[in-house]
Amino acid sequence: MKLLEERILKDGKIGAGNVLKVDCFLNHQIDVPFLSLLGEEFHRLYKDEGITKILTIEASGIGIACLTAAHFGVPVVFAKKTTTNNIAGDVYTAEVYSYTHERTYNIRLSKDFLTAGDRVLIIDDFLAKGSAMLALLKLVEDAGASVAGAGIVIEKAYQPGGKLLRDGGLRIESLAKIASMDENGIIFED
Amino acid sequence: MKLLEERILKDGKIGAGNVLKVDCFLNHQIDVPFLSLLGEEFHRLYKDEGITKILTIEASGIGIACLTAAHFGVPVVFAKKTTTNNIAGDVYTAEVYSYTHERTYNIRLSKDFLTAGDRVLIIDDFLAKGSAMLALLKLVEDAGASVAGAGIVIEKAYQPGGKLLRDGGLRIESLAKIASMDENGIIFED
Repeated sequence: MKLLEERILKDGKIGAGNVLKVDCFLNHQIDVPFLSLLGEEFHRLYKDEGITKILTIEASGIGIACLTAAHFGVPVVFAKKTTTNNIAGDVYTAEVYSYTHERTYNIRLSKDFLTAGDRVLIIDDFLAKGSAMLALLKLVEDAGASVAGAGIVIEKAYQPGGKLLRDGGLRIESLAKIASMDENGIIFED
Repeated sequence: MKLLEERILKDGKIGAGNVLKVDCFLNHQIDVPFLSLLGEEFHRLYKDEGITKILTIEASGIGIACLTAAHFGVPVVFAKKTTTNNIAGDVYTAEVYSYTHERTYNIRLSKDFLTAGDRVLIIDDFLAKGSAMLALLKLVEDAGASVAGAGIVIEKAYQPGGKLLRDGGLRIESLAKIASMDENGIIFED
């Protein structure tokens, strides 16, 4: 998506450890009118899939998930990273390894909010090694729901997650795919 | 707001420790079309205030903040609860005591995303003792920005936060105010 690639080139910063920082519009400050345009594009791509629910993971997925769901007119459900007193009853769980934070954590999703009748679109801000996506797919599978595909804002295509998941049969629509990235700049895939 | 009170009576559950659970539409599953109506109401209340930014706190404030910001056409910025490698440079910080989790945590906000020129609307899902709100107000003050007020989905009016903050001069618009709540039911303030 040209609009997004231009925004990444304009506002993205490459930090220590080759981390792409897009804090100013995606995952700390949220440029709501801009993300709503991205959500409209996800809707264009998946509008014929009979989506009943959008699944994401806290915290940085919630904004883009809500602004996408507004176009579909369906609810969002987000997997929670921490144990809280406010999740009652039975939950689905899965394990995620965070390369950013170098630790493993669990995600939880109440069984009340994902069921066998659901047709799910998974939305997230980034796809790199695919650890969070695999965990979200496990939640969908445990619920007996079906997954229409994933909508990703930025895919680090030089990481193995996208190929691994597509080889496994998952439809992934990434609005920007980064082929390579270093101190000299960012190159997108065609 | 009648629509919200009816929804709380229909779908809210009172759990152990007198916790109101509205997981099914507000803070685990997010009923996006419904929350967009709440956002429209916040816009009606604050539309003449020249709002430039909506401030909230992760994770459960992000959905309602984004769906409110969509009506204002302004960005959201959310305070982060955890230390991450992805916040660069200088940050504003404040301390919050969570009564739910019985611990103190820090919130952080990049100085890049809140500045002296900003006119801020603070949005959150709950107001009870006011600890999170006080911390968010400190971030606004540290930035030299001005606060137009707060928009709260559910205020527990039997807790001291609302009175404390209003006595301090803060405008607070709560869409539902719970006067009392126990196993016999929920009573709203007029």
